[in-house]
Amino acid sequence: MLKIALLGAGRIAKIHANNIHAHPDSMLYSVSDISTEAARSLASQYQARVLSVQEAINHPEVDIVLVATSTETHAEFSLLAAKAGKAIFCEKPIDLNIDRVKACVAEINRLGVPFMIGFNRRFDPNHAHLHRALRAGEIGELEHLQISSRDPSPVPDDYLVASGGMFRDMTIHDFDMARFQLGEEPVSVSAIASALVSPAVKAAGDIDTAVITLQTASGKIAVINNSRRSGYGYDQRIEAHGQKGALRVDNVPTTTLVKLTEEGGVQAQKPLHFFLERYHDAFREEWDAFITAVKSKTPVPTTASDGLKALMLAEAAIESLRTQKVVNVSLEGV
Amino acid sequence: MLKIALLGAGRIAKIHANNIHAHPDSMLYSVSDISTEAARSLASQYQARVLSVQEAINHPEVDIVLVATSTETHAEFSLLAAKAGKAIFCEKPIDLNIDRVKACVAEINRLGVPFMIGFNRRFDPNHAHLHRALRAGEIGELEHLQISSRDPSPVPDDYLVASGGMFRDMTIHDFDMARFQLGEEPVSVSAIASALVSPAVKAAGDIDTAVITLQTASGKIAVINNSRRSGYGYDQRIEAHGQKGALRVDNVPTTTLVKLTEEGGVQAQKPLHFFLERYHDAFREEWDAFITAVKSKTPVPTTASDGLKALMLAEAAIESLRTQKVVNVSLEGV
Amino acid sequence: MLKIALLGAGRIAKIHANNIHAHPDSMLYSVSDISTEAARSLASQYQARVLSVQEAINHPEVDIVLVATSTETHAEFSLLAAKAGKAIFCEKPIDLNIDRVKACVAEINRLGVPFMIGFNRRFDPNHAHLHRALRAGEIGELEHLQISSRDPSPVPDDYLVASGGMFRDMTIHDFDMARFQLGEEPVSVSAIASALVSPAVKAAGDIDTAVITLQTASGKIAVINNSRRSGYGYDQRIEAHGQKGALRVDNVPTTTLVKLTEEGGVQAQKPLHFFLERYHDAFREEWDAFITAVKSKTPVPTTASDGLKALMLAEAAIESLRTQKVVNVSLEGV
Amino acid sequence: MLKIALLGAGRIAKIHANNIHAHPDSMLYSVSDISTEAARSLASQYQARVLSVQEAINHPEVDIVLVATSTETHAEFSLLAAKAGKAIFCEKPIDLNIDRVKACVAEINRLGVPFMIGFNRRFDPNHAHLHRALRAGEIGELEHLQISSRDPSPVPDDYLVASGGMFRDMTIHDFDMARFQLGEEPVSVSAIASALVSPAVKAAGDIDTAVITLQTASGKIAVINNSRRSGYGYDQRIEAHGQKGALRVDNVPTTTLVKLTEEGGVQAQKPLHFFLERYHDAFREEWDAFITAVKSKTPVPTTASDGLKALMLAEAAIESLRTQKVVNVSLEGV
Repeated sequence: MLKIALLGAGRIAKIHANNIHAHPDSMLYSVSDISTEAARSLASQYQARVLSVQEAINHPEVDIVLVATSTETHAEFSLLAAKAGKAIFCEKPIDLNIDRVKACVAEINRLGVPFMIGFNRRFDPNHAHLHRALRAGEIGELEHLQISSRDPSPVPDDYLVASGGMFRDMTIHDFDMARFQLGEEPVSVSAIASALVSPAVKAAGDIDTAVITLQTASGKIAVINNSRRSGYGYDQRIEAHGQKGALRVDNVPTTTLVKLTEEGGVQAQKPLHFFLERYHDAFREEWDAFITAVKSKTPVPTTASDGLKALMLAEAAIESLRTQKVVNVSLEGV
Repeated sequence: MLKIALLGAGRIAKIHANNIHAHPDSMLYSVSDISTEAARSLASQYQARVLSVQEAINHPEVDIVLVATSTETHAEFSLLAAKAGKAIFCEKPIDLNIDRVKACVAEINRLGVPFMIGFNRRFDPNHAHLHRALRAGEIGELEHLQISSRDPSPVPDDYLVASGGMFRDMTIHDFDMARFQLGEEPVSVSAIASALVSPAVKAAGDIDTAVITLQTASGKIAVINNSRRSGYGYDQRIEAHGQKGALRVDNVPTTTLVKLTEEGGVQAQKPLHFFLERYHDAFREEWDAFITAVKSKTPVPTTASDGLKALMLAEAAIESLRTQKVVNVSLEGV
Repeated sequence: MLKIALLGAGRIAKIHANNIHAHPDSMLYSVSDISTEAARSLASQYQARVLSVQEAINHPEVDIVLVATSTETHAEFSLLAAKAGKAIFCEKPIDLNIDRVKACVAEINRLGVPFMIGFNRRFDPNHAHLHRALRAGEIGELEHLQISSRDPSPVPDDYLVASGGMFRDMTIHDFDMARFQLGEEPVSVSAIASALVSPAVKAAGDIDTAVITLQTASGKIAVINNSRRSGYGYDQRIEAHGQKGALRVDNVPTTTLVKLTEEGGVQAQKPLHFFLERYHDAFREEWDAFITAVKSKTPVPTTASDGLKALMLAEAAIESLRTQKVVNVSLEGV
Repeated sequence: MLKIALLGAGRIAKIHANNIHAHPDSMLYSVSDISTEAARSLASQYQARVLSVQEAINHPEVDIVLVATSTETHAEFSLLAAKAGKAIFCEKPIDLNIDRVKACVAEINRLGVPFMIGFNRRFDPNHAHLHRALRAGEIGELEHLQISSRDPSPVPDDYLVASGGMFRDMTIHDFDMARFQLGEEPVSVSAIASALVSPAVKAAGDIDTAVITLQTASGKIAVINNSRRSGYGYDQRIEAHGQKGALRVDNVPTTTLVKLTEEGGVQAQKPLHFFLERYHDAFREEWDAFITAVKSKTPVPTTASDGLKALMLAEAAIESLRTQKVVNVSLEGV
């Protein structure tokens, strides 16, 4: 039974606490949070204790540190845990500053502890099924990938600056998904974007509607369609076109109920509203994959390098937007 | 070029006039109608002449008589045309009285002229595709057939009596469809029905909501789900379940437009509204099948016997409703 | 924290054990099974103890007895638990013999303990959504209900006799579903059936393909389409047609992956394979509903009477099959 | 009754001949083709005569000249017809050389005859429905348009050079569709492309897989996803995302038949195979729109300027591909 020190007691931390408890091979050992009350409340639900971050990371009984605190602490807490010899699960991103990410990744790799970055979407049963089908060659060589990724509604205005901008905050998941499905590293990035959704986004110098294209050395193309607002729930679809046909994964409706009326036509249910609902199973599968890797001493499926590469693609997209040019990137060996 | 005398100038007659004109091997020669004005108007669109029914049926230039007048004249006009040696296309039903139908069918068969009954639904590309797939054994031996057949809204109150009741007027198409898809004659019929849609139906002693089950000698079961009112357009679906799986044909939407909003969910278009829209292609294919049979002197696909058998099933359903029992029928050799 | 004595350690018992453990207000206290090894194995996963049935039912710390043993013991164990003053959750059916069920239900009602029968399908999020929409009047007055219920493949030959026949074993769920969705008791039943799937079914005098129709006093019609073999997974669909339109709940695919190829057309995934997968969420919701009722001392949602009424409909269907007549039933006041 | 001189007797000309004949207000007067035999064969089907191009264009009885000859003759024949004072329907493109197109458009505009360019896809009932819904504000202000346009299989190798390259030959339809749906002119274009489908394409210096993005002055983004090979039929889908939700038009299946089996899952039919099938109705609606405009002396819906603008976008995309930069375009006032 692996003992988990959970850093953070917010929304994502609660999801992890539940999955840790439900997993037959892990238990929630402690919760740490800047708010002692939040930590206490979460810990009490699972008969866990409240520890300070320092105590938790260095506790001899703790096997794994799960970093689900606010973004600016991810790199620091991860490094502390790595130095304490713990296995680490860190929510994305490692940091918004690419130099700090590079330094952190290098140090973690040097220390050699298991480190998994939380790219939960790879573990969504639908996206994972697409991945398996592509790798099994069901449509031959992949040629063109289309990712549609739209949040139901914009982030709060006061989060806009802290977010690091849409490409680093939101598209980062899509960059990772593109790499995951492509099976070949992108060598160039170009981006088109607008601020159409809210005046606050425009005022902050950010964008909320974008199309980003990636191209690999062999010519495969991935296009990411992003919006901060769908207006009808979470839009999380992927299409893959290849030599022998196409594969698609669609959104997941809340239920299969369909209503047919004179006025409304044929009305199916909206997609599951946002990531808590849509990626509920993905978070559970992600945790299982991590625990399995730690127990069996096999490599974790999403590494610190994956976190760095996704951020490098985000930086390239930002540069493309600024220069209005295709920007070359080199991810091999990172 | 086969010359067609069209009897009738109403809604169905207009569909036929258009298909006659568009077909490369047929032309509209004359139109006859109880309303001279209606006949003249329709004839003028296609450079055809207006003739009386007698003139048309006996005209030496006429090859084919198409009977699309009101129901009570179908048998008489068909017999006259048969005696004049013409090929005949007759809209369903031959008559509402089963004894008259039997006499008419016997006489037409004796005279040996081509006679096709207008069971247009068999020629719908979707239903025809299902038929081909079943005959090709795509799901092995058929075991269970489910027909959903709902009109968008009830017939006018003043047509209720003339209609002969729902089973003879509306379900007759479904009885024919069941026979077409089953590929084996039903040997028993049972029916459950209610009058739920309108007080006028109830007052007329008719029913508007029904489930009719048919069973064949080998045990295959067909169930027909009927309503005089769908509330959302024409419901015309079939499911077939067999040894190796299932086949379904669904309704056809007006366009493929889908709208996704917070309030409305995922809204697809309603099914094509009624038979003029949904069976537009079926009427054209039906006419082509008839012309092809006449030209090639091969048997027509839907015979006078098919018309009689469908009516016999309707009569059995009526008796089942009255007696609350399963009613045996014998269609072999009819 | 309610303490649960689980009787049985088979397939269904394991589902319940998992849901009991995951629920914040219940814990697995003990497991009892005819096989001590099976009981021990299941108990150890949840730090529960192994008790004999007698010990478990009469244990002072036990709040709830969950009866998930083989069918012939349901009535006896339920009565023992009722006499011991425990709340009871009993898997369906109470018994295959209607007189024993009536006696058991009467005694349980007399003793006044909470007793819930395991009609899990009512708690499926899709079926429950349909129920809410119907009760909310979304399509006005309900007129016609169509239930499609097909198992992926036939039951083992050696279970055929013990099952009590298809209507008591399988259709019983659909009878309950029809009552749940209709919102009005059926007053008559008729049935058509065949043995088409396997020679063993025929040899056992049972049937495997059936259409059962129910009618209520106000004329609402429900039709149940059953097969012991779908050939493509679990078929669990419902359609409801009413004054203002229709509502449907469809099957749930394993994932949303769709493959498009020249040879295969547009291939979506099969429905979730069988009840363990399709009704995974339903079992969890069912347990939550039971615990909520016990904690809040409110009526359980599915009662002993519901179990009896479903069996009465099964008996009527059997009689209809024998007599080839519509059979009247009286469920009011049961 | 408008009399039509049809120039050309190939695949597209045949579609037009059929639609001219079926339309109540037009008749096929003459056919002209470089192959007299082809012209004679087509003319005879509709009781039309065979004329030389010169005779046809200058014939006093001819009202309309329909140019459906090979691409390099479009501009010349259109100009001759314009000088003869005829209304003109010209298949796209006017020419592959943009200077010749500009000169031709200027001259035609100067002469003031009705001139319609054959952008048939605008008249597809599905795409037209999307257009109406967008203009009616059903999703508020449009923000992001996604066009998927994939041919079933590559063009013949010997057509590659004559085609003018994928952007001028195939994407030109998508550029027009983007303009049609956007309702605002693009001001910049960028393109990413690869040659993945066939060695012949690569050898010809052409591309077969591409993503083209357009941006308007107000920030609306359109992305076009192109491939010369889908592997499963014609892929013609559009998505529009706006302030209040989204609208999509999907492919049209050949029939609604769906097959469910253990091995194949849930198999729906492929999309209609190619433009002859998918845009069958669009060509008919296009012709009706043209005849209606000529008869009522109202502007034609797709003008010579539309032809020029689509080609200007193609040229910009080609430049973007070469320079790896976003390319500005100015379509206002063209």
